[in-house]
Parts: sequence; structure tokens; C-alpha cells
Amino acid sequence: MTANPGPVAPSRGVLRPVGLHQVRLTGGFWGQRQAVNGTATIEHCREWLDRLGWTGNFRDPDAALRRRGREFSDSEVYKLTEAACWETARPGGHPHGELLAEFTALAAGAQADDGYLHTGYGRPGQPARYSDANFGHELYCAGHLLQAAVAAARTGAAPGLLDVARRAADHACRRFAAEGFCGHPEIEPALVELYRVTGEERYLAQAAAFIERRGRRSLPEHEFGWRYFQDDTPLRDAEVFGGHAVRALYLAIGAVDVAVETGDDDLLASVARQFDRTLARRTYITGGVGSRHLDEAFGDDFALPPDRAYSETCAGVATVMLAHRLLLATGETRYGDVVDRVLHNVIAAAVADDGRSFFYAHTLHQRTPAEVPPAEHEQLRFGGGQRAPWFEVSCCLTNVSRLLASLGTYLVTEDDAGVQIHQYAPMLVAASGLRLQISTGYPEAGEVTVTVLEAPAEERALTLRVPAWAGGGTRVERRVFAAGDEVRLDLAVRPRWTFPDPRVDAVRGCAAVEVGPVVMCAESIDQEDGVRLDELQVDTAVAPEANAVKGRSISPVDDPWPYRDRHTTNRISTTGDEPEPIVVPLVPYHRWARRGPSTMRVWLPTVPS
Amino acid sequence: MTANPGPVAPSRGVLRPVGLHQVRLTGGFWGQRQAVNGTATIEHCREWLDRLGWTGNFRDPDAALRRRGREFSDSEVYKLTEAACWETARPGGHPHGELLAEFTALAAGAQADDGYLHTGYGRPGQPARYSDANFGHELYCAGHLLQAAVAAARTGAAPGLLDVARRAADHACRRFAAEGFCGHPEIEPALVELYRVTGEERYLAQAAAFIERRGRRSLPEHEFGWRYFQDDTPLRDAEVFGGHAVRALYLAIGAVDVAVETGDDDLLASVARQFDRTLARRTYITGGVGSRHLDEAFGDDFALPPDRAYSETCAGVATVMLAHRLLLATGETRYGDVVDRVLHNVIAAAVADDGRSFFYAHTLHQRTPAEVPPAEHEQLRFGGGQRAPWFEVSCCLTNVSRLLASLGTYLVTEDDAGVQIHQYAPMLVAASGLRLQISTGYPEAGEVTVTVLEAPAEERALTLRVPAWAGGGTRVERRVFAAGDEVRLDLAVRPRWTFPDPRVDAVRGCAAVEVGPVVMCAESIDQEDGVRLDELQVDTAVAPEANAVKGRSISPVDDPWPYRDRHTTNRISTTGDEPEPIVVPLVPYHRWARRGPSTMRVWLPTVPS
Repeated sequence: MTANPGPVAPSRGVLRPVGLHQVRLTGGFWGQRQAVNGTATIEHCREWLDRLGWTGNFRDPDAALRRRGREFSDSEVYKLTEAACWETARPGGHPHGELLAEFTALAAGAQADDGYLHTGYGRPGQPARYSDANFGHELYCAGHLLQAAVAAARTGAAPGLLDVARRAADHACRRFAAEGFCGHPEIEPALVELYRVTGEERYLAQAAAFIERRGRRSLPEHEFGWRYFQDDTPLRDAEVFGGHAVRALYLAIGAVDVAVETGDDDLLASVARQFDRTLARRTYITGGVGSRHLDEAFGDDFALPPDRAYSETCAGVATVMLAHRLLLATGETRYGDVVDRVLHNVIAAAVADDGRSFFYAHTLHQRTPAEVPPAEHEQLRFGGGQRAPWFEVSCCLTNVSRLLASLGTYLVTEDDAGVQIHQYAPMLVAASGLRLQISTGYPEAGEVTVTVLEAPAEERALTLRVPAWAGGGTRVERRVFAAGDEVRLDLAVRPRWTFPDPRVDAVRGCAAVEVGPVVMCAESIDQEDGVRLDELQVDTAVAPEANAVKGRSISPVDDPWPYRDRHTTNRISTTGDEPEPIVVPLVPYHRWARRGPSTMRVWLPTVPS
Repeated sequence: MTANPGPVAPSRGVLRPVGLHQVRLTGGFWGQRQAVNGTATIEHCREWLDRLGWTGNFRDPDAALRRRGREFSDSEVYKLTEAACWETARPGGHPHGELLAEFTALAAGAQADDGYLHTGYGRPGQPARYSDANFGHELYCAGHLLQAAVAAARTGAAPGLLDVARRAADHACRRFAAEGFCGHPEIEPALVELYRVTGEERYLAQAAAFIERRGRRSLPEHEFGWRYFQDDTPLRDAEVFGGHAVRALYLAIGAVDVAVETGDDDLLASVARQFDRTLARRTYITGGVGSRHLDEAFGDDFALPPDRAYSETCAGVATVMLAHRLLLATGETRYGDVVDRVLHNVIAAAVADDGRSFFYAHTLHQRTPAEVPPAEHEQLRFGGGQRAPWFEVSCCLTNVSRLLASLGTYLVTEDDAGVQIHQYAPMLVAASGLRLQISTGYPEAGEVTVTVLEAPAEERALTLRVPAWAGGGTRVERRVFAAGDEVRLDLAVRPRWTFPDPRVDAVRGCAAVEVGPVVMCAESIDQEDGVRLDELQVDTAVAPEANAVKGRSISPVDDPWPYRDRHTTNRISTTGDEPEPIVVPLVPYHRWARRGPSTMRVWLPTVPS
């Protein structure tokens, strides 16, 4: 058993997770972000929870008709609790004891005698408990309570919270013994993890039951259709993730957890197959998923418009969680490629440098500069080209926070033979009897040096993931290591052109530039005077440079009707003038919109060959 | 003054509308559709209004808490009333006297003593009157009542309804004398038309006030933003239509009406300019507008994805209404091109052959076949690839019905010099002292023969619009006509390739086929065995045939990740095999989804040149 486990501690699997104390980020790309998260972001979220009354709902649970926030606002308190637990306990973390004591008391104080805990239901003047299976979010909130309590139990940072969670879980098991489930999955992985902490098998059984009951069109009919809720087809029979993206991914996460603990290899294989198909057909180049605003849903295969790409931050967090679980269960290091991509292009893009404003959605094409919102103004969930300090639906902020606080546990695994390093960051690792120091400038630079600080007198295998863009596979060093040994990996972090599958219609005739795991973009603020992002073509016959590509500026004619009979000019200037050659500066996508409102595009139209 | 005017009767303008009795459709493409509408569709809508209790809300207005339907359901009753008036009175129309008597009594019976009329507000247990400026739809519903009453007054088909409408209008003028307006425009054009019927200038003044008050961010803040409600910028200062498409167009319609009656040429010019820019940058090839599902809104310039194109039927109806008003006001026959396009590609697509099922949204790319819905099942408003008998938001059905019933008045105009024929259909026309018979197989065939049946002994100008695709402009025959004279126009209705502006990113590298005013599409049901619509390229070097184009079938490789480093293969087969040459059969877009669920695309990827 892993000591001080992080968020995920399966009892079996090809690889074992490392515990929270086994990896210490020591700076660099992620160390810096983890530090900002541990202080600024957690503090920022706490201020907003208080300001908007979402913590107040717990303090004064009988003032039901004055309750503030949406039906899922309780979950933000729990997710921030979880983040604060990991942050408090991780090596080098910032302590949040006061917050944790207070939030634990809030949860305990608002819990009903029978264990039910939600500030929005069941009191006089409130809707009845479980009266809205589709959108009530009661078990969803309970799930986040359970995950916070798992963090509390594993870190010791929030004594008492586990008892609250057990009572809530016991209530849910009683209430849903025979039938029912929540419109928004989340309690499923939470129950499995609580089972892993407590050993109570009924939690595992309840999670399994929730998953098996789903997919039979038993939720009330809703205009978004049963697919939105993953209630159209039993999960094990589905072919690809669909419907509301975060719901789909949380359900898949819970299913992997159940499958691993119950030995249900068919279910595990089904989820893995669906994830593969989702990656092959329903995922943006950034690793983001979910293309629709209306229902926050996956689109059809290859329906991946960069315009208003939804690609919710929470779906990115969930993709990391799912890929990590499949990595542990199967040992297939290719899942590390997904994590790498999502971390550097979704998670890194989501948070401002100061840790106090956020993207909820991640468009890949911003056609008009965002309006500068009023300072400290709560934003739409879908925002538009500018990070916002908070959202009416503010799930993403605390979700990123809990991921960053526990990030070390997602980067490295171990097994009986040795250590596997899946993600590269400056860090200290203690695993499989080895103590290692990893030095790297990743993702900007591809050199990775693993220095052995301590080693047992036995053979160990040190496995390093080689990203797909660097050839893929792994590099394995198997020997009796000694202190001072160095293993070097030199990944070719060079800018490269990337082209879409011909079925991704929305970006036909375009190319993107990637550098290592980082997707680049063109942002208007960097362009030469007069060059408009919607009026350029890039020359893919010329290799991209690190921060720029060659291209030309076209001058489209403003016809009164934009559909014409000229069949030779569909992609080039219609003026007859020779297009002007230009240099198109690029920046990492995760850096965009940090210098004020701008237009931006990831996919660049190409000069016709 | 026009005798028996149709829906729009301006008191000034370059061209005058013809009255309802001046044009009789005698068959052909539109005559057939008008006949089906006059019987089947009106009857069908009436059945659903009764079945769902939307007429019942009027019958039992005190049973407020049992009220059924959405806040705008009253308007469906009014729009069907309007349709039934035009249908009853038009030459060759089907009488609906019983429906009209009953609906008139319903409206009269539900009207409050002070003139207020909405079944959903103000009674015990209901929300207060005008308590939701954004979404209450009370003045919106009143507007449709007024338009129904205008039809009643002009046709004599529904005696008594005008009195109800005047009381409702008087109430609205009193209540909104000083401030306020409706989140959904519609009462603005209705008040102007009621002014035209009654001569009461306060109705015109109220419409003008509603338009002037809008655009100052005075509506309550909403997550969709003020642009959604056209409350971000005063209409006369805006540059392009934006926000909710139907709202934007109804407001523009009202503004043209106000501008024409008050001589506000600046306002008229502003709307015309915005419409021009909207046509140049925010309109689908079908003439449809509105690309977003979430907020049913116009997108940014050139953001026109065919995937899930929203292109609501009502926005098509509104575009016809706006273009017709601008045609009358300015005399610019180019507006007829827009009407032609929308009629043949949006309105014609919206209604099933039997007149009993409908599209609400008009996607230009259906990637997966629609699920066959349960028979007679109420549908989502956004549907998905299959016409539905009714919608929870069912505005489009009765909107199309009122347009079709009064369609003759949109096809022809007159002025002091003669007659202008803007749209071609088999019909009898009486205008400017001429009686004309128009014979044509349009839109399938381009020959139009105008036979003079009667003529005055004075010179008349007969003006025929030449569609832009046939060269544009007009053909004018000016002489003293005599019975038996024939004027022939031969429009080259040939299939042609059409290419998008390079800024319409979503269809880069694609072409469409048009035949006359008709946009074509490829539907899966017609394709050769094994040819998938998402795996073909068409050869635009070969001229399209009437019902097919040449192309090739590519065989994309199912890679685990759809973004690759192969820069020569972004649009062609990656198998190395020579792509197989194929014939790609096409059908008119308005014919699609009439033979069961299928996939479909309008924009066809092209073989790289």
C-alpha cells in the first residue's frame, strides 16, 4: 500500500501511484504554478466563496430562502477543502489549517441527523430532497464532500471530515439502496475512494450499482436528451464518450475505479476503448474535449470547430484523472501523452499568472477581442477571450486547484521493478527505494537529467516516457543504480507543423504549430501592423521557427455576398495583387490573453500548395 | 392606397406592395406549398394548439396555475389566426371561418378590462404583469395579436378582432408611455401596421419610442449579455445585426416601418447598411442566419459553421419580411435575391411535403442520421436532422404558415410606371392596370413567360428581376401593352460551383453546388455503396451536372490521434492508394431528410488543385 496516498489509490493495477510525499516539485513550469495555486488561488477562491455567500449557506442553513448560489455551490466548498488538504500536506506546501478547521465545522454543522448534507434542499421553503434527479446535484455535491474527506483522511489535514463524509455516504447508500442515481456523476469515484480509505465494501457496491443503473433512460425526459446524462446506453455498451463532457468523464473515472476494485475487466476494457475513440475523433489538438456550448457536450465524431470550442477546464481536469487511472490500471505509458497535452494546453491556459483569474472555456479561435469586463465582476461560465475572477458556475477554479495541489502524484508511478517517470518537471522523487532528482527545462527544453541521490543495492528499472511527438514508447534503464548516476533523455523539442485528419472539417486547409507538448497560437497583439489573423496564410513548406512562421497576408474583397463562382480563388487573394510575404509571430496557446484583449487562432490557413 | 393590402402596407416608399387579391398563385413550386399550408398545416397547428392546451389557456384563463405552454404560447394562437385570415381571403384560399370565429372569441374572452391580454401573467398565482422584461414575452405576444388583427381588418375574415387589438394596443401605450420595452421585439412592426390600419398616430409614436429606448443597457443584466436583446447599442448606431437573430430581425423590421412612416431616412439607411453587412458576413449560403444554438444568435463575422448551423426558420421568415420592406422603401431589386434564396432554401426546407412536420433549425451538415423520434412526439426546438410535428418552442410553424398564406404579396410590386415581378412562380397578377399571367417552371427551369391578359391604353413598364446568379439587375419592358403580348425571360438555371469567402473558416477548401436559386446537397441515401459523405472530395475542375458531381472517395486512416505531422496529406488519402473516382449524386437542400434519417452536407471538400 502506498504511504500517504494522493487522490487515487487503487488496490490493484499494473502500476502503483506514488504517495503525496514521494514527489516534490522544485520549481520550473509546474512548480511555479503549484506554488501560486497553494497561496493565491486557494485564498482567492476562499474570498469569493465568502463574498458570494456560498460558505454562508452552511453557516446559516436554516435561512433556506435566502440561500445563494446554484445547486452545486456546496461542491466548491468541498473542492477547495480537498485542494487545501493536499496543499497543506504536500512537500513544500502552504498550510491552510484555519480554512480546513472552519470548513470542516461548516460541513459538520449543516449535516442533518440522518447524514444528508446539502444546503439547498429539504428545509422548509426549499425543494424536497432528491426532487430533481437530472439537475439537483445532491449526490454530485456529496461526492465532492467524500473526496475532500478522503484527502482529509490521507493527509490528516482536516480531522473530523471523514466522519461527516461517512455519515453522508451511509445516508446515500440507504436512500439509493434499491434504485436511482444522480444526473451528474461524481459520487461514483468518490464512493470507491472512500471504500479504499475505510474498507467499507458497501461504498464500492453502491458505486457499482449507480453505474449499472445508468443508461436505461430512467431519468426524467429532458430537452437535451438522455445522452446528455449518459442515460441513453449502459456505459459498458457504449462506443464513445458522449453527452455532457464532464458528466461523461466523471462517470468513466468512477467506472475505472469500480472495474479495478471488482476485477471487472470487461468494464475496464470498455472504458479504455471509448477513451481511445474519443481521443481519435472527439478531442481538440490541445487535449480539450467538448465542442458544444449549449449542452457542454461532446459533438459528433470530428465535429471540432475551433470557433467557440467549449473545451471546459473541468473536462481537462477530468481527462487527466481518467488517463492517470487507466495508466495505473493498464501500465500503458501512452496515457501519459494525454496528460502531458492537457496539462500544458488546457490546465496551464486556465489560470492567470497571479492565480486569480481563470478560463472556464477554451476557444481555439477568438475572432473579436474580448470586452474588458468590469473589475472583479462575476462572469458567464463561457466567458469570451478573457480570464475572469469567478463564474456563476464556478466549478473549474477549485477543480484546477485540487489538481495542482496534488499534481506530484500524477507525474510518477512505481511497480515492483522500479520507477516510471511519465511527466517531466524539476522534482525530487522517492520511489522503489530510489531517491532521484529530475532536472529539466521542460516543456520549453527537451533535456531531462535524472540524477540518482540514493539507491538500493538491487537492480531497479528506471522508465522514462518518450512522448509520441519524440518517437513514442519508453526508455528503460535497468541496473543496480548508485548515488551519482545520471540518466539523460534528450527530447527533440522543435517547432513542427501539425495537420488535422481530413475529417475534422472545421480546420480543413489549416495547420498548427506545436513545440514539444505545447500548442502554439497566433495572437493579434504580436502581429505586424495591419496584419489581421483572419486574412493570412502560412507557408508549411518552410519549417516553423520557435516563435514564428512564414506566410502571407491576403486581402479579401468585401463582396456583398460571400459565396462566389470563382473556383480558383477560394483560398487566396481575390485582388489580383501578389500577397504580401509576412512573418507570423506565435506564442504558446497557454500564454494567450495575458496581455489584454486580442484575437487569436491556433489553426492557421495554409498557402495552397 | 393598395386595396386589400397584405401584411405590409407602407404609406410611402419607392415601390408599392400589391394587395392580397392582386396575385393568385396557380400551382408550381409555391402554389403547391401554399395549398398544402392552407389546408393541412393550418389544421395541423390548430390540432396541436388544442392538444397541448395552448388554446385552452384562453378558454379557462382563471385556471392560472394549470396554464400550459411557454410564455410565448399565446402568440402561436395569434399567428395561426393571422395565417387563417390571409388563407381565407386570398384568391383560391381555403376558408377557415370557424377557426377564426372561435379564436377571436378566445382572445376577446381572455382580455382584461383594461385591455391587457396574456394568459400567463397577472392573475392570482401567476407572475405579475411585466415582471420579466427580458423573457416575459408579453408585448411580443401582443404584437402578434395586433398583426392578426391587421389581417382580420384587411381581409374582413375575423370581425371583432381589431377591437380586441386596439384595446391591447391602447393598454400598452398607456403602460409604456414613459419607459420600458419588451425583451423580444415584435410589437414595434405590429404597432406601425395597426397605425396604418387605424390611422391612430400614437401607435406609430409608441413603436418609435420602443425602438429609441432600446440599446442603452436598461434591461436587467443576463448571462447572454445585452447584445442578445439588442440592448447594447441603439439600433441606429449599430453596424451589423447581432444577438438573438429573430429578435434582431424583428427589431429591424419595426425600425424600417417606423422610418418609412416618420421619414426617418437615417434610421432607414442604418438598417439597410446593417443588413448589407449581415448578408456579406453573417449569412449562410442558404440565406439562413444565426449560427449559435446556445443563444440562437448571430455569430461573429464569418463564423458560419455548417455543423449545427442554427439558421432558425423564424429568422428566415423575418429575413423575407425585412428584405421585402427594404425593397418597397428603396426600390432596390437586389433585395429580391435575398427573398429568392431564403424562400427556396430555408422556407421550402422547413415544411414536410404533407405540411405536418417541420424543421426549426437548418443544419448544413448532418454527421449522423437522426434518430427516428416517437410518432407524434413533441420535439426539441433544435431537433436534429428530422422534421418534427411540433416543438416545445413552436414559433416557426405558425410563422411559416402566415408567410405562405400571404406569399403572393411578397412576389410582385407596383409603382406609378408599372409592375415589378421580383419572384417567379405560375401566377395571375393584376397591377398597374395590367392583368398578367406568369408561366414558369422556376426554380427547376429558368424560362419565364409573362402573358398580358389585359392592358390599359397607356405605356406601362414591366420590370423583371434578373437574379444575381443570372447576371443581376432587371429587365424592363416599357410600352403600351396589348392583350396577348408576351415577355419572355430565360434565366440560365445551370448547376454551378460556388466557393466561400476565404474568411468563412469553417468551409475552407470546400465548394457547394447551386442550381438557379437552389442550393444542392449530398445526402447519404443517394450515395454509392460504401461512399461516406465525410470521406469524399469533389472535383471542381469538372462542371457540375444537375444532379451529380464528380469526385473521389478517400480512405482516411483511423489513427489514434487525429493531428499529424504529414504536411502533404492534410486533404487526401493517407493510405497511398489512388483514391477511387466516384459520382456524388446531389439533391436540392430543401428536399433533404424527406426519405428517412440520413447524413447530409452542403459544403463538399474539394480535390486539392
